[in-house]
Amino acid sequence: MKSRQYLLAKRPVGTPTAENWDYVETELAPLGKNQISVKVLYISLDPAMRGWMNDGKSYIPPVGIGEVMRAGGVGQVIESTDDNFAPGDYVYGGFGVCDNAVISTQGVHKVDPKLAPLERYLGVLGMPGMTAYFGILDTGQPKAGETVVVSGAAGAVGTVVGQIAKIKGCRVVGIAGGEEKCRYLVEELGFDGAIDYKNGDVKTGLKEQCPDGVDVFFDNVGGDILDDVLTRINMKARIVICGAISQYNNTTPVKGPSNYLTLLVNRARMEGIVVFDNIENYGKAAAEMATWIAQGKLIAKEHVVEGLATFPDTLLMLFRGENFGKLVIKVDHAQ
Amino acid sequence: MKSRQYLLAKRPVGTPTAENWDYVETELAPLGKNQISVKVLYISLDPAMRGWMNDGKSYIPPVGIGEVMRAGGVGQVIESTDDNFAPGDYVYGGFGVCDNAVISTQGVHKVDPKLAPLERYLGVLGMPGMTAYFGILDTGQPKAGETVVVSGAAGAVGTVVGQIAKIKGCRVVGIAGGEEKCRYLVEELGFDGAIDYKNGDVKTGLKEQCPDGVDVFFDNVGGDILDDVLTRINMKARIVICGAISQYNNTTPVKGPSNYLTLLVNRARMEGIVVFDNIENYGKAAAEMATWIAQGKLIAKEHVVEGLATFPDTLLMLFRGENFGKLVIKVDHAQ
Repeated sequence: MKSRQYLLAKRPVGTPTAENWDYVETELAPLGKNQISVKVLYISLDPAMRGWMNDGKSYIPPVGIGEVMRAGGVGQVIESTDDNFAPGDYVYGGFGVCDNAVISTQGVHKVDPKLAPLERYLGVLGMPGMTAYFGILDTGQPKAGETVVVSGAAGAVGTVVGQIAKIKGCRVVGIAGGEEKCRYLVEELGFDGAIDYKNGDVKTGLKEQCPDGVDVFFDNVGGDILDDVLTRINMKARIVICGAISQYNNTTPVKGPSNYLTLLVNRARMEGIVVFDNIENYGKAAAEMATWIAQGKLIAKEHVVEGLATFPDTLLMLFRGENFGKLVIKVDHAQ
Repeated sequence: MKSRQYLLAKRPVGTPTAENWDYVETELAPLGKNQISVKVLYISLDPAMRGWMNDGKSYIPPVGIGEVMRAGGVGQVIESTDDNFAPGDYVYGGFGVCDNAVISTQGVHKVDPKLAPLERYLGVLGMPGMTAYFGILDTGQPKAGETVVVSGAAGAVGTVVGQIAKIKGCRVVGIAGGEEKCRYLVEELGFDGAIDYKNGDVKTGLKEQCPDGVDVFFDNVGGDILDDVLTRINMKARIVICGAISQYNNTTPVKGPSNYLTLLVNRARMEGIVVFDNIENYGKAAAEMATWIAQGKLIAKEHVVEGLATFPDTLLMLFRGENFGKLVIKVDHAQ
């Protein structure tokens, strides 16, 4: 079985470019014990991928030079040496940025295309949904009547965070780039307000949209937006640090939050989250979110780009703020 | 009754200078209902005073221009119109930077010179002690065997934080300025290690002194030291933000912690504290600390400077890192 693959050729300095990738075609090894071969159908593109391209200690090891770029995906089993998986099964796993993969079945699980479109298992029903669910509920601890602000609000995680906070009875304000996204958050997802950081001052927007201050801030963006929100936090506010996409391509040091001493004045808390810590509770979370989806309380949004070869460019959409909902590549396969 | 007083003449830009103060002698008003006149004996000098000199929203209102500079103090009652206080009583209260005061008795409480030297009620048995006690125990939550690092370790709060963490069975490392302070922390207070930030690299010191990483960081200093410690934190670390004395005289924006994303990687927490939130539990804390002092487990250290007129200079010792233990002024009175 052949596979087209994106290998990490070189660690990026700043924004990844063509020279960071090798796009190759390889003959895959035959299956070993407890392995499957998979036809990859959808590939998940996530801000965290930028971190995996760097060397150095993080919550998981970096991708090695010459290795297939790490990515979650959904695909269909072609062959299997594991009794739990049969050809034809649809599965979620870390297949990487490629069109076919041979992989050990540890960490692979089946998904049901009758319950949800396959790409949704990379969004609301996948890592971003889990990140949002545990981050906002366990770490953010929103209470009815509180004001919740989320940055990267139109992204895979942000859309879910805001909708869950609405379900919990909060006033929800999203920070996103562009009028279309902001309108969508309010009109389609039911956010109480949206602030367009590309068109106006975030501080002014926060004053207008959060007259009672900010009780919970779920931050995907970092940089100036984090600093602006820190000036508006309430007593005992919770700031959930999920990511800092504005800083991932920096060639200079990350911009730390100059206003962090508002944590002191307000006895507030800033806490980091990593979704994998909740792995034993994914099932419960997925069931609750599936119920909300069925009840129309939680709307899923995916942004699908076609073609494996678009990968280097499509990845950059995340850092330019161009994706609208969960960004996935739909893999093209010869008939 | 006459009073020598330091009034805030002008809000400082950067480090306070002579022009920020008016040193005046005033005739105090006669006592109103429920008031006392007090001969002030010791005045507490605290890093927080720098913040009170600024305009703008904080956890308490700023000192007004032309008002007596706010300060805690210990003194002796001269006259009283409150049945709870009699001439001769020793009292703690917010008397301000002055040698005599007339003040409402709300917030004033008696202290016992037989139980402890009077200046100690401004240190271990006062605000710094309470700050240390509740900050390290409630917010830091140190567990036996964990590594606790404290900055400003030789100061009023830091000395107590470190000793309480030792009592709780932790490995304790202090960051302080100068060989003498570092030796004192280890040899007299029983810290496991000390890092002299004025003589060598804090990062290297942390590597050497905290081979198992940092579980709790109690930060009084901010700036580069906070950033250095963030590179060494463990999973689920707790960072207690008590102050940022390195930043209080900045004329440029505060240096935010560039390494704050280690909070994410390590699912760690950064939380601000203000001592006043624990006011209903001060008694319990003071009793426990008095017991530790009696058992020889907690050593109090005060740094006494004589003379009210030294105030503008003595205050700056805090920002130059020159105090060694709790800094107080012993007020001079004509015989």
